[in-house]
Amino acid sequence: MNPAQLQHCHDTIRPHIHRTPILTSSYLNQLSGCDLYFKCENFQKMGAFKIRGATYAISQLSEEARKRGVLTHSSGNFAQALSLAAKSLGVPAYIVMPENAPLVKIAAVKGYGGTVILCPSTMADREATAEKTQQETGATFVHPSNDPDVITGQGIVAKELLEDYPDLDIIVSPVGGGGLIGGTVLAVEAQDKNIRVIGAEPFAADDAYRSLISGKIERNVTTHTIADGLKTMLGDINFPIIQRGVEQIIRIEEVEIIEAMKLIWERMKIIIEPSCAVTLAAVLKNKELFAKKQVGIIITGGNVDLTNLPF
Amino acid sequence: MNPAQLQHCHDTIRPHIHRTPILTSSYLNQLSGCDLYFKCENFQKMGAFKIRGATYAISQLSEEARKRGVLTHSSGNFAQALSLAAKSLGVPAYIVMPENAPLVKIAAVKGYGGTVILCPSTMADREATAEKTQQETGATFVHPSNDPDVITGQGIVAKELLEDYPDLDIIVSPVGGGGLIGGTVLAVEAQDKNIRVIGAEPFAADDAYRSLISGKIERNVTTHTIADGLKTMLGDINFPIIQRGVEQIIRIEEVEIIEAMKLIWERMKIIIEPSCAVTLAAVLKNKELFAKKQVGIIITGGNVDLTNLPF
Repeated sequence: MNPAQLQHCHDTIRPHIHRTPILTSSYLNQLSGCDLYFKCENFQKMGAFKIRGATYAISQLSEEARKRGVLTHSSGNFAQALSLAAKSLGVPAYIVMPENAPLVKIAAVKGYGGTVILCPSTMADREATAEKTQQETGATFVHPSNDPDVITGQGIVAKELLEDYPDLDIIVSPVGGGGLIGGTVLAVEAQDKNIRVIGAEPFAADDAYRSLISGKIERNVTTHTIADGLKTMLGDINFPIIQRGVEQIIRIEEVEIIEAMKLIWERMKIIIEPSCAVTLAAVLKNKELFAKKQVGIIITGGNVDLTNLPF
Repeated sequence: MNPAQLQHCHDTIRPHIHRTPILTSSYLNQLSGCDLYFKCENFQKMGAFKIRGATYAISQLSEEARKRGVLTHSSGNFAQALSLAAKSLGVPAYIVMPENAPLVKIAAVKGYGGTVILCPSTMADREATAEKTQQETGATFVHPSNDPDVITGQGIVAKELLEDYPDLDIIVSPVGGGGLIGGTVLAVEAQDKNIRVIGAEPFAADDAYRSLISGKIERNVTTHTIADGLKTMLGDINFPIIQRGVEQIIRIEEVEIIEAMKLIWERMKIIIEPSCAVTLAAVLKNKELFAKKQVGIIITGGNVDLTNLPF
């Protein structure tokens, strides 16, 4: 990506986001045998990086389209992200959510000013409801991960990381729908350096790993993982970016996700989602790959149910 | 306190401690009706502020005394703090701990290089074992809170807070043994400003509240509180400092401690001990007292058992 485009994105979203801190842990450096730099998007507005892409996507709409609003279907962080981004840009947001979504998530979307439309929980129902809502409102559909502006917006996480630590050798990102790791590739390409991008995902939702091998977008066979943000599949916009820029994807067992999550909670005293614990787990199970390197780790968010922890 | 003395302490301990970040939360500001600045000693080395006082106390010993080592009895954060401070200053540390202390805490002390001496869990046994160990080793006893150098060292928390936010109106500190709030008073006195110091403690361990009223050191009648760091009593060195510099002590119910702790975990995405949740609880139950003020909140530490949470 052209550095000027990325800079334009950063300048556009800057007033609406936090520049999150980058934390280190001498204990985890010792344990892993490399220098880890944790980019803490759990401290981001609404508790996750997704506000970045949502904000940029809305900001790129015409005045006319903004008046009609934006629309998505999501039961996760993107539902809250689009609502809050829309609110801070003065745009209506319609969020299609499954009827069985946790009440706390529905309340959070409403709290940010989004209009919630409930529907049965199948993907077919979600898509049909979204289409119907779009026809009724004229709102623009914003995909949580397979949208060029969303991908660029998520790339600002890695851009900030590289501004603060320009000598990183590797950035490790979780892979869910592919928006964040796609944006990370764009941010690395805007640099003049040879920085490697490595993905991490659960064995139980290893669509991206298999897609890179087969050369086409594979679906998840199972999604029985605690990493609820990583169950989604890649899209036709982010997959080619991932193909050209991601060196490899490391698969993680469920028990390794929980161990890495507990390590970060206990040692760094920060609350992170299981979905981003795959990154530290990937380093700890492949120490020789990361040995003595400067490694950026993307902590995607901190929205967890404290009454239902895996430890 | 003479500002030069406090500066000497800061310069002495600086190479051995972290300068911890100060975090804010727009949600909690809105909820409380004032501007809160959280000084995050949960990110301090060994997970708590106690390393500051321990480091300063050891650094003030003679060369001869350092060779013989230091000694304390504690089952809490000070056991780890004295061990780690001694290690980083190259001094032996002897820690008397009750036999029923959690294995993880005993392991942590040993991990920092301290020599653990186990004894029965009564206070009389602890004191007798400490005295015997002192006679055998010649080590200098360091009290966790009632020691002038420990108090001065803990005061560096407030000194850093005031360097970063010189316009604070109030600092709120938990009150356990009185070392931290005593040091906070010293740091405020070293300023040329009228900054108020307010304490917070559980109803279930309200010795400091009653001591300020009666004018003499009162003992706790009960200590059935989740705030395990606040069960200890004041001492003859810190009590006069507290008497002259603490405006009032606010008492907190157990349910309020847990609610405030959960609010900080959920909204700030940081892991804090129940012992410091009393500070936010004190603000939330006395909104008129803090209305529109700039309020420093001391987050003392983040060492909690993740498998035994109150929510």
